[in-house]
Amino acid sequence: MGRIVQKFGGTSVADLDRIRAVAQRVKQEVDAGHQVAVVVSAMAGTTNQLVAWARDIGPIHDAREYDTIVASGEQITVGLLAIALQNIGIDARSWLGWQIPFHTDEVHSAARIEHIDTAAIAERLDQGQVVVAAGFQGISPEGRITTLGRGGSDTSAVALAAALEANRCDIYTDVDGVYTTDPRIMPKARKLNHVTFEEMLEMASAGAKVLETRSVAMAMRHNVNLQVRSSFTSDEGTMVVDEDNDMEKQKISGIAYSRDEAKVTLVGLPDKPGIAATIFEKLAENHINVDMIVQSASPDKSRTDITFSVGALNADKAVACLKTIEADLEYKDIVSDPDVAKVSIIGTAMRSQPGIAKTMFSVLAEKGINLHVISTSEIKISVLIDADYTELAVRSLHDAFGLEEA
Amino acid sequence: MGRIVQKFGGTSVADLDRIRAVAQRVKQEVDAGHQVAVVVSAMAGTTNQLVAWARDIGPIHDAREYDTIVASGEQITVGLLAIALQNIGIDARSWLGWQIPFHTDEVHSAARIEHIDTAAIAERLDQGQVVVAAGFQGISPEGRITTLGRGGSDTSAVALAAALEANRCDIYTDVDGVYTTDPRIMPKARKLNHVTFEEMLEMASAGAKVLETRSVAMAMRHNVNLQVRSSFTSDEGTMVVDEDNDMEKQKISGIAYSRDEAKVTLVGLPDKPGIAATIFEKLAENHINVDMIVQSASPDKSRTDITFSVGALNADKAVACLKTIEADLEYKDIVSDPDVAKVSIIGTAMRSQPGIAKTMFSVLAEKGINLHVISTSEIKISVLIDADYTELAVRSLHDAFGLEEA
Repeated sequence: MGRIVQKFGGTSVADLDRIRAVAQRVKQEVDAGHQVAVVVSAMAGTTNQLVAWARDIGPIHDAREYDTIVASGEQITVGLLAIALQNIGIDARSWLGWQIPFHTDEVHSAARIEHIDTAAIAERLDQGQVVVAAGFQGISPEGRITTLGRGGSDTSAVALAAALEANRCDIYTDVDGVYTTDPRIMPKARKLNHVTFEEMLEMASAGAKVLETRSVAMAMRHNVNLQVRSSFTSDEGTMVVDEDNDMEKQKISGIAYSRDEAKVTLVGLPDKPGIAATIFEKLAENHINVDMIVQSASPDKSRTDITFSVGALNADKAVACLKTIEADLEYKDIVSDPDVAKVSIIGTAMRSQPGIAKTMFSVLAEKGINLHVISTSEIKISVLIDADYTELAVRSLHDAFGLEEA
Repeated sequence: MGRIVQKFGGTSVADLDRIRAVAQRVKQEVDAGHQVAVVVSAMAGTTNQLVAWARDIGPIHDAREYDTIVASGEQITVGLLAIALQNIGIDARSWLGWQIPFHTDEVHSAARIEHIDTAAIAERLDQGQVVVAAGFQGISPEGRITTLGRGGSDTSAVALAAALEANRCDIYTDVDGVYTTDPRIMPKARKLNHVTFEEMLEMASAGAKVLETRSVAMAMRHNVNLQVRSSFTSDEGTMVVDEDNDMEKQKISGIAYSRDEAKVTLVGLPDKPGIAATIFEKLAENHINVDMIVQSASPDKSRTDITFSVGALNADKAVACLKTIEADLEYKDIVSDPDVAKVSIIGTAMRSQPGIAKTMFSVLAEKGINLHVISTSEIKISVLIDADYTELAVRSLHDAFGLEEA
């Protein structure tokens, strides 16, 4: 007996049959005696249609209107799921973001949840009614509909679990858990039973698409018991947990990769103090997130090269905005390369196991894979490589670190 | 200079091009110096999809969830239209039913508007911002989304015009006004420049599909200047006005017909007091609206026949529920006939011109058209005839009353 938040994404509610299957999943938890709040996304096809309409109606985008349009997607799903539950004898009602409400800031299309009033829904849960909540949406201080940005339903679910002090937050998805790496490119990839919050965070930001970064950070902050599991099988999924102290981890946990990267190099910059600051301030002003950075000596000793990686969609914008300060930077050339990928190994084991970086670099060197940029955190090492080598790098590292064995 | 409410239905906003055309219509009024509030329906295809989903998800229909689902349709349109307006330089924002708000009662799917808080939107209108309001929807006392039933956007527009004390309420539709009869079956049908509220009411309830009955009644009650005009041409439409006192009308105004009728006859009822009351009470209890009624002598003198008309969809239900009280009614037979149509002539001229009924019956008799039931009001005469004769009846009456000439 306890409170459970279940979250079902767009592919899990893509049509009426799947919504009925979701209703059965909810029923299992209700039958087990739990109080259940369900958070749902829009039906997969609906979101695409709404986004296309909002983009195509005209070049000017008022984010408040955009949010009004796309938030109708979850509105449809919550109503349909509530009816599906009622049809199998489960007391249920739908709740829109503004009805609960999910109070957010006013940053439309990328709003942050500030506070959830749980009084009304907690009362319904105590009465045994299933709460069917629209994910992804909230209400601004001005009373307008906001959205959290795509993928935001994970964050809605975790925030709701935290506010309701739920015993568990189950994120249902089209994979059955978190894997050591992407099974599509490494058949020997193994499902993890546990992963720590920090590892999950690093995996998400390194390109693993299982959970959204913000939702993991929020779960960590509020210590929400998070589980990733499949909508389509009844297998146990992967629990995302606090770092496990009773066992010294011997291995890294996973390998992530991302092809949505581009490399930009400024060649032959004058080697003077403050030049890096000028560059990265300019990029920040233009809302371009820089991921990895390396500075290297130019053949001309008085000059230096700076290479950094950005999201592939931002590469042209980064080049264009740095060209506007060409006179200040005095670089000799600026080049961008979209054919790169980032491969990362992640694991809290790095804290206690020296030599992991050395192993990684040796393995890649043996395969003749050139490393353009390297970056590390306490529990992660990322390298930027030519995109063509992505699969080879992932498989070689998976073998080298013995990830197929539990 | 004044305040104008414009209403655009589902076919007028059926795709992005039409929404852009609507934006141009709005711009014309803004450019003419008017304050403009626009009420829109859902895109025609969207409504059909939403209704289909809500029906197909399961046999139990919680009307509150149904309303949540279908109200997302207008939510999409208001956002798109607001963006379309902004893209042609018009300041505009969308308003959902709960944001304005349109307070309604709690009768989901057939809610009545009780009160509209116009403070917030009136302030925006005064600032020159176009108000883009979702039609068809409101908010219940409990804070849930309600809908007014299909076609309810006309009522939303008239209610908003009344609450805002607008100078005019223009209902844009796919016809360019109110005609003397349906031009599809009578090519000589003529567009009316004026029609009175009462005539419009009778026409709507007699089957003319131009305006919803409730919206006309509301316009009459609040004396809203209502105009029916085309979304696709810039011609003047038909003004719905208070009865014109300075001119004695010589002719009827229009001929309406409806094929959505069925005739039910109870044969050989005992001719005793209270038997009609028993029948019509039973039907009312089962929410079956009876339109026309006639009682006639049976060949057996101690017995009587009662014939009435109901909406075609209710015929089987009416027969079934009367069969449950067969023992009380002691009828000899009950028969229903769906192949009937109602043809009505409407006009305030009937008040001052005697002989209109006689002309009508003579014309129909000349054509050999049998009248099953007749009903009259002060400004309307309706007859129930065999459906096959509908077009012939409409055309003959149109000619006989000289409606092609202004």
